[in-house]
Amino acid sequence: MPSSLDPAIAARLKRDPAGLVPAVVQEHGTGEVLMLAWMDNEALHRTLTTGRATYWSRSRREYWVKGETSGHHQHVRSVALDCDGDAVLLTVDQTGPACHTGTHSCFTDELEIR
Amino acid sequence: MPSSLDPAIAARLKRDPAGLVPAVVQEHGTGEVLMLAWMDNEALHRTLTTGRATYWSRSRREYWVKGETSGHHQHVRSVALDCDGDAVLLTVDQTGPACHTGTHSCFTDELEIR
Repeated sequence: MPSSLDPAIAARLKRDPAGLVPAVVQEHGTGEVLMLAWMDNEALHRTLTTGRATYWSRSRREYWVKGETSGHHQHVRSVALDCDGDAVLLTVDQTGPACHTGTHSCFTDELEIR
Repeated sequence: MPSSLDPAIAARLKRDPAGLVPAVVQEHGTGEVLMLAWMDNEALHRTLTTGRATYWSRSRREYWVKGETSGHHQHVRSVALDCDGDAVLLTVDQTGPACHTGTHSCFTDELEIR
């Protein structure tokens, strides 16, 4: 879909067949990995220009400003592409829990290593 | 494809249309996010049973034990699913640089927030 994302950035971004890249969200200060969400060009554009983490919801098929309904905002401190341009790392200041289940991080289901 | 992954874990994993989930790799101790790779059921099974980070290469279409050719191994300390079961977080002890470009982390291309 058309987007206002800087063409120089769009050219470095390698999207999957659905036009998305995974966005890893890390908490500033603690370094905790809070969640993983998805971005298309427009979500990245909105994130970079507003400083508020904005994702594409694959299930609801709509843009989603983190905290818009929950109040659990993410103020974005930095955004970095990886070496292949197919993933994004955000560092954020997280208000409240990042996870919709109420936990600070979404990664709480630890698997056993044998 | 068939896999020996514990069916109880496989049932909790929500794979994309290509059968993959993104795996975020975080360094134990420093908390640095090193890279993002992809896993199918079998890659997760091999990771959990060997303790060596094993991914699915989307470009080469083959399993890939991190460090097998570079020597830059990842010894896996923990593996956690997120709340939706559609992403995995690994914490690892990283030998050498994680990135094939020679940098410690793959996320070196910082974008400007305006």
